[in-house]
Amino acid sequence: MAAEQDPEARAAARALLTDLYQATMALGYWRAGRAQEQAEFELFFRGCPFGGAFALAAGLRDCVRFLRAFRLQDADVQFLASMLPSDTDPAFFEHLRALDCSDVTVRALPEGSLAFPGVSCRVPLLQVCGPLLVVQLLETPLLCLVSYASLIATNAARLRLIAGPKKRLLEMGLRRAQGPDGGLTASTYSYLGGFDGSSNVLAGQLRGVPLAGTLAHSFITSFLGTEVPPNPMLAPAASQGPMVDLAACVEAWLDRVCAHLGLGVQEPHRGERAAFVAYALAFPRAFQGLLDTYSVQRSGLPNFLAVALALGELGYRAVGVRLDSGDLLQQAQEIRRVFRSISAQFQMPWLESISITVSNNIDEEELTRLAQEGSEVNVIGIGTNVVTCPRQPSLGCVYKLVSVGGQPRMKLTEDPEKQTLPGSKAAFRLLGADGSPLLDLLQLAEEAPPQAGQELRVWPRGAQGACTVRPAHVEPLLRLWVQQGQLCEPLPSLAESRAFAQLSLSRLSPEHKRLEQPAQYRVALSDKLQALVARLRAGGSS
Amino acid sequence: MAAEQDPEARAAARALLTDLYQATMALGYWRAGRAQEQAEFELFFRGCPFGGAFALAAGLRDCVRFLRAFRLQDADVQFLASMLPSDTDPAFFEHLRALDCSDVTVRALPEGSLAFPGVSCRVPLLQVCGPLLVVQLLETPLLCLVSYASLIATNAARLRLIAGPKKRLLEMGLRRAQGPDGGLTASTYSYLGGFDGSSNVLAGQLRGVPLAGTLAHSFITSFLGTEVPPNPMLAPAASQGPMVDLAACVEAWLDRVCAHLGLGVQEPHRGERAAFVAYALAFPRAFQGLLDTYSVQRSGLPNFLAVALALGELGYRAVGVRLDSGDLLQQAQEIRRVFRSISAQFQMPWLESISITVSNNIDEEELTRLAQEGSEVNVIGIGTNVVTCPRQPSLGCVYKLVSVGGQPRMKLTEDPEKQTLPGSKAAFRLLGADGSPLLDLLQLAEEAPPQAGQELRVWPRGAQGACTVRPAHVEPLLRLWVQQGQLCEPLPSLAESRAFAQLSLSRLSPEHKRLEQPAQYRVALSDKLQALVARLRAGGSS
Repeated sequence: MAAEQDPEARAAARALLTDLYQATMALGYWRAGRAQEQAEFELFFRGCPFGGAFALAAGLRDCVRFLRAFRLQDADVQFLASMLPSDTDPAFFEHLRALDCSDVTVRALPEGSLAFPGVSCRVPLLQVCGPLLVVQLLETPLLCLVSYASLIATNAARLRLIAGPKKRLLEMGLRRAQGPDGGLTASTYSYLGGFDGSSNVLAGQLRGVPLAGTLAHSFITSFLGTEVPPNPMLAPAASQGPMVDLAACVEAWLDRVCAHLGLGVQEPHRGERAAFVAYALAFPRAFQGLLDTYSVQRSGLPNFLAVALALGELGYRAVGVRLDSGDLLQQAQEIRRVFRSISAQFQMPWLESISITVSNNIDEEELTRLAQEGSEVNVIGIGTNVVTCPRQPSLGCVYKLVSVGGQPRMKLTEDPEKQTLPGSKAAFRLLGADGSPLLDLLQLAEEAPPQAGQELRVWPRGAQGACTVRPAHVEPLLRLWVQQGQLCEPLPSLAESRAFAQLSLSRLSPEHKRLEQPAQYRVALSDKLQALVARLRAGGSS
Repeated sequence: MAAEQDPEARAAARALLTDLYQATMALGYWRAGRAQEQAEFELFFRGCPFGGAFALAAGLRDCVRFLRAFRLQDADVQFLASMLPSDTDPAFFEHLRALDCSDVTVRALPEGSLAFPGVSCRVPLLQVCGPLLVVQLLETPLLCLVSYASLIATNAARLRLIAGPKKRLLEMGLRRAQGPDGGLTASTYSYLGGFDGSSNVLAGQLRGVPLAGTLAHSFITSFLGTEVPPNPMLAPAASQGPMVDLAACVEAWLDRVCAHLGLGVQEPHRGERAAFVAYALAFPRAFQGLLDTYSVQRSGLPNFLAVALALGELGYRAVGVRLDSGDLLQQAQEIRRVFRSISAQFQMPWLESISITVSNNIDEEELTRLAQEGSEVNVIGIGTNVVTCPRQPSLGCVYKLVSVGGQPRMKLTEDPEKQTLPGSKAAFRLLGADGSPLLDLLQLAEEAPPQAGQELRVWPRGAQGACTVRPAHVEPLLRLWVQQGQLCEPLPSLAESRAFAQLSLSRLSPEHKRLEQPAQYRVALSDKLQALVARLRAGGSS
């Protein structure tokens, strides 16, 4: 446990970020002399979100960070003591003070893996083994760290499938998230799921997420046009030649732009133009315009063009424009037409292909429209609809006990969807000759792994009986990441996990990748696991 | 700025929790010589969530905590420098290093206030004044801190209205939240909105939210019934008389319970019973049972009763039971019937009225059912449906510039819903003789406040013209909380804000409190503000 040396340990979730019943159960286990019994829990979800047939597993890096830093401080233990019976044996609190995760082992799907819940049969995202008391305490924080991360990564992957590979997708939802960490998690895992970047500076600083940002309406409305910039002079891009008064140069260009567009030169808002000039003075190499503060066609666009052309004359190339209201697709077409016409008129060929960014409550339906053939939109900013996952704002992950002291355990509730699969398990993905996944197989940990090219009998859940399958390739799904509290191999970088997710998705058959009414991917049990379930259900040994 | 002395400063959101465009605009303002200009922003939302006609304002305490701690560290400034043009004047970064909120003033609705957005006319939740550069930078974090807090407080208030005053409502959604802070915010502000407590230990420790918790299915499935507790002996409640072997005593009671219920004594699951005994040994004064791990009627209930009666014999009173699946209302009726019958049979009168807690994906509809006349449910645990606000997972707050250098500003976009109200404003709630709110009035800050008993002319938004109103009482809505960076008065405690919210709701007329298709509450402008809007819209001075 190298928590002190980990610069991110301070950022880890706190140990008391848990439900009170974990603490009361901890006391129950301890009083029953069972705190140190070896137990195994599985973390999984019961159905794919958003009506799809896949999810992306995510959140492992936050879980590892949490486990490495996990310690109850004196103040934490004192607080728990205040919540528990006053005659609780003080030795229990000594036990809590000494707790850490140095006896905890975690197997998990790598970040960005495809995860498929079958019908009441799920490959776990995490398998957590260790002393019963401590692995029970970990339930709530691990669920909290995995559930939303996987949900938003999946949401982002769907949006990427809709947008296609060429549109740039930016996450801009920090202000719509559930507080600071909600925002940080959203930015991190929407990038993992396939977005290109985020507006969230903290996600850039702490997680290396690529950042993007331009300007807001308030910047524009803050200018009246009567302000006198302390220094309106700008040197040419090549640093040769005299400095130029950018504001004056822009006014000259405005005349020519308005004449070309058939607008009166008084129509474009002078405050908006002053704001663009101020922004251009600060960012001559990265000038962008937000066009819809007053009127796109009569103000924002001509003002932007006047500044972009003035900069162009000095050798700078404007980066693009952003639209935040109205019919985004149609406006993008009109703007591109104007760009082409102006670009030809004033012989600035680079201008016709500058970037058009759009935002404003874009959901899957609107994204489909914006991504259609012939769309002139280049960059799409999505906030609320990526961050809050409004179609299904929770993944519903659960964390269930599957064995204690080496004995399998199973919850045999009357609600079949809430039954669990017993025992310590291994999981494999069986692939076809073309590398596409055929089905996932769950078996007991002690069974020999399936072999490529060999036929085997499996029990797909939801089906009436067994069937046979002959995989061309076999991939083990659950990797050992933390053993006895030690990280076994470096976690992949966020960018590596992002690439892995895209690769995995590219191999998935289109019938499972469809966003509406996809074919369900099959998950099956081995003969032995199927037999154990039947035995426990009949009351055999549990 | 007493950030260092504030024990919660460490918990405050970080300064770089913001959108990149705030930093690029900061450079734009600075380059234009406008960093220190006095500006005012308003934070408001555009429509009430969940189809209702009210919202609760919340999140102010987190905003104040953030403002007091706001500082860019060296590493933060270096990171921003890496995101900005390499030839940016170093003096800009010196300016950032020296930034704090010591020139920032905040007026706001008190925590728990009723907030009503009129038709394109909103009383702001926050008014933030200060140097343009710094108040611009605050946009994203303030939105992030207010938006979800107000959303979940409102959601909780609706659930409380449905449940009525007598049911206990517990928030249990930490595992469904958007990461750690999402969970902490959810627990804090669902309590403010009217819940009785939470399962989230961190919310109890950091925010003083009352906590509740029992046990989970994993505790029960971890027991086979073959375990030997190290010490099965329990002393009577009154501490007089000999210790008793609780497990043995429970077995004797099980015979009597099964005989009375007509069950075979082998039917109740022995592992479940062992788990209940273990929990009772740890919590003899707070014993609760989770009934649905195997079968409520044939296992969970008789096992619980055997333990409760054995404890009862020793003078302890069990606290209650929890159900987490199936038809909760119907099972509660059946369980209560059994409690009554057992209580009479074995002369333990307290047993008939112990608490029945239910949980399992409870939403507004199911809550309505559970709260109906004659329901035997006492405590209702809600997770996903309070935390994720699935009917509308984002409030959509915005933060808009309303004045710079004392001059009003207005966004005159072509989308009328996105227009803003210009100028520094004051807001008043006009009340009827019975204390119920009639309408909210927005006027320019310099206007004299409306007087109780005096008729005045106002312009309700969405209406064709002006109307007159004669309030019996007038309440100023926006209080000064932070002046020049100093807290002006202590923030009310969370429990005080919770009581204020309930009081405010009790005074609101039922037509506005209806959860579906309520009458919209009116917000009106004063004569002078109405005239300013008309003038700016006509292009008068902006």
